[in-house]
Amino acid sequence: MARITSAEVVDVRFPTSLTLDGSDAMNKDGDYSAAYVVLHTDDPALSGHGFTFTIGRGNDLCVAAAVQRAEPLIGRDVDDLVGDLGAVYRELQSDTQLRWLGPDKGVVHLALAAVMNAVWDLAARRAGKPLWRLLAEMSPEELVDAADLSYLSDVLTRDDAIALLAKQADGRAARIAELEATGYPCYTTSAGWLGYSDDKLRELCEEAVAAGYKHVKLKVGADLADDIRRCGIVREVIGPKAGLMIDANQVWDVPEAIEWVRALAEFEPLWIEEPTSPDDVLGHAAIRRAVAPIGVATGEHGMNRVLFKQFFQAGAIDFCQLDAARLGSINEILAVYLLAARFGVPVCPHAGGVGLCELVQHLSIFDYVAVSASLEGRVTEYVDHLHEHFVDPCVVRDGAYLLPSAAGYSAEMHRRSLAAYAFPSGTYWASRGTSESVA
Amino acid sequence: MARITSAEVVDVRFPTSLTLDGSDAMNKDGDYSAAYVVLHTDDPALSGHGFTFTIGRGNDLCVAAAVQRAEPLIGRDVDDLVGDLGAVYRELQSDTQLRWLGPDKGVVHLALAAVMNAVWDLAARRAGKPLWRLLAEMSPEELVDAADLSYLSDVLTRDDAIALLAKQADGRAARIAELEATGYPCYTTSAGWLGYSDDKLRELCEEAVAAGYKHVKLKVGADLADDIRRCGIVREVIGPKAGLMIDANQVWDVPEAIEWVRALAEFEPLWIEEPTSPDDVLGHAAIRRAVAPIGVATGEHGMNRVLFKQFFQAGAIDFCQLDAARLGSINEILAVYLLAARFGVPVCPHAGGVGLCELVQHLSIFDYVAVSASLEGRVTEYVDHLHEHFVDPCVVRDGAYLLPSAAGYSAEMHRRSLAAYAFPSGTYWASRGTSESVA
Repeated sequence: MARITSAEVVDVRFPTSLTLDGSDAMNKDGDYSAAYVVLHTDDPALSGHGFTFTIGRGNDLCVAAAVQRAEPLIGRDVDDLVGDLGAVYRELQSDTQLRWLGPDKGVVHLALAAVMNAVWDLAARRAGKPLWRLLAEMSPEELVDAADLSYLSDVLTRDDAIALLAKQADGRAARIAELEATGYPCYTTSAGWLGYSDDKLRELCEEAVAAGYKHVKLKVGADLADDIRRCGIVREVIGPKAGLMIDANQVWDVPEAIEWVRALAEFEPLWIEEPTSPDDVLGHAAIRRAVAPIGVATGEHGMNRVLFKQFFQAGAIDFCQLDAARLGSINEILAVYLLAARFGVPVCPHAGGVGLCELVQHLSIFDYVAVSASLEGRVTEYVDHLHEHFVDPCVVRDGAYLLPSAAGYSAEMHRRSLAAYAFPSGTYWASRGTSESVA
Repeated sequence: MARITSAEVVDVRFPTSLTLDGSDAMNKDGDYSAAYVVLHTDDPALSGHGFTFTIGRGNDLCVAAAVQRAEPLIGRDVDDLVGDLGAVYRELQSDTQLRWLGPDKGVVHLALAAVMNAVWDLAARRAGKPLWRLLAEMSPEELVDAADLSYLSDVLTRDDAIALLAKQADGRAARIAELEATGYPCYTTSAGWLGYSDDKLRELCEEAVAAGYKHVKLKVGADLADDIRRCGIVREVIGPKAGLMIDANQVWDVPEAIEWVRALAEFEPLWIEEPTSPDDVLGHAAIRRAVAPIGVATGEHGMNRVLFKQFFQAGAIDFCQLDAARLGSINEILAVYLLAARFGVPVCPHAGGVGLCELVQHLSIFDYVAVSASLEGRVTEYVDHLHEHFVDPCVVRDGAYLLPSAAGYSAEMHRRSLAAYAFPSGTYWASRGTSESVA
């Protein structure tokens, strides 16, 4: 028996705004941050680690909310908790008073993600398996019991969901073996941050091609002439066959998005990502109709399963980019994967941030093994920074994530990283002689 | 000249869960609360008051977020601020790091509402006018400059908005005179809270009829047999011609909503309010098609203008119930009123909560005077509790709000109320010998 003894929640901030890593047309000066949760137990060898991702100011709000979200877990028996991961999610999610602040969105939902990510990490560690394998070995009924299908029954019932998973049950072992040989395909965003010079862009694209990537993503939306020039550079370096994705990070209204994307059509982008407000289902649908065959992608700011349901119902997106630290952890992510499979939309998770690559590799592997059983149109984001802070960092070879083998959700950070980047008291921030964020 | 010297933000909580005032199928035990903002200036006679509304736990998160949202205002010249109320909104709203936690939703947006409500109160006090009059005397161009029209140009351009307001400019004075004689029509929710007994329901309905109300709202959705019996009681008391609204507070999935509402159709409800997830535009559209001629209403959890745009585009609602403490204050509320007028949907603002009646009376009056110029299908919520905490409480006579005459947005609370109900240090909470919320 082990019991949860405490929830440690740390405000961790990395000064990425200094280098413009992560810069784009909307998010010019992010300090990549995490509200980082450790569920301690009375077994010193057993703990659960999770986080939500933010870009600086307000990370403290997620920390305070995560403390509240985690409170009902203190004193609980670990085996009881991990024995019904649907029940614990529903208990935390349905807090009648916190619900008012969402529901299922914003700070309280980000905090739910952080805490439930730690619970799922704990469950996988308790089972001695990487999370993707824990999930891949659950029965269709067990997966559906864990999934949050509330507000979805107009398009996906419990029976639909079980049938969908049962259809893929037979091939699971073969697909695991396949991915163990090849890894899961990814693309790099590291080349195309908006703050980088043309020379740095060209150089990084050359490096990406040399490293085996078949897709490169470029930030756009600040200046059309710049975008035309930068798209030209990327297309020239990667050649006509590789995938070029463009990402506007929500800077446009719908008519402007259509006009701007059409002006970049000659570079044959695979997708335009976040062309407008992340809440605008009908707007994305209108853009998609207008810019085809260029695909429309969104999801990193997709607040919950109800929004994704509508993106699918409206035929608004070609690629679903769910976020592992914004949706309510595996419970809600399962629902979105099931919806995506029901509507035949590939999921290409968002991973630009700190630690998101570590999480999404588990999701993509699980999707191929147990849900979609397809790699078609699927490629998962990879960004090559801040992995040094993680105990079990993701490993990418030849443009593919290798399968994680350590137990858990790969979310644990090094204690030395927390000591340095805890905000504002960590050694890095204290040495700046200020309690202010960089930006 | 006056400058803003500080922003005082108070966590105020009222123990409403003790009496089940405010109880419904989703929100069983709310402690009506406010993250209450006072912008102090170096003129002791001038301050701005605003708040956002919550139902208990997590109000502290809104307080912490409001402190951050208000920080850029400290030291500013009041006349500069109130001279460009669009600019100050855009500055606060577009904080590049806090934006990640929304955008435009959840705790950071509630906090923006609290702070900007205080700024608008300050502006009205500076002008020596009740807010409705300040707004009603602004030119179409001034109103549109203050409105947040971002992400809306696919359905409403700046020119559209100006034309729409200019069309109503001539009759403003006559409509003010009319409302000064009649007040603005309202309905009462106070009779029908779910936690009340049948006898209490019947008695309160009789009182409502005697007090001149022509509409009564009833909470439904916990038990169908109870709902049938309770609807029968209300219809019997109010008679066949008065309006009966029913409100499910988001408890149903789409198919269940359709089935349940059809089972209550014999009582001829005017509208079904919040039949499902507040985020589900397409779900509301499906329900509306299925339950007509019963109307569909939603909006108290409507997170932002982009959501309302889609409700209107999709023909999903018959009544728009925007919330004065959830949308980004007048700046975003103006946008929703303009959208509603563009699509011909009546706005009947939400006011169940603490202080919301005080705010929404200004909105409804302004709508009639300057935007829609219509009372058809419009009736504003009124709930008769907690008004004693306000310095300039709303006044209802014969089922109508009388026009406020004091300068400001009627948001100021009595100091004695803050002293008693500040959480957890106020005299009420301290005397309970606990730092825990009631529920």
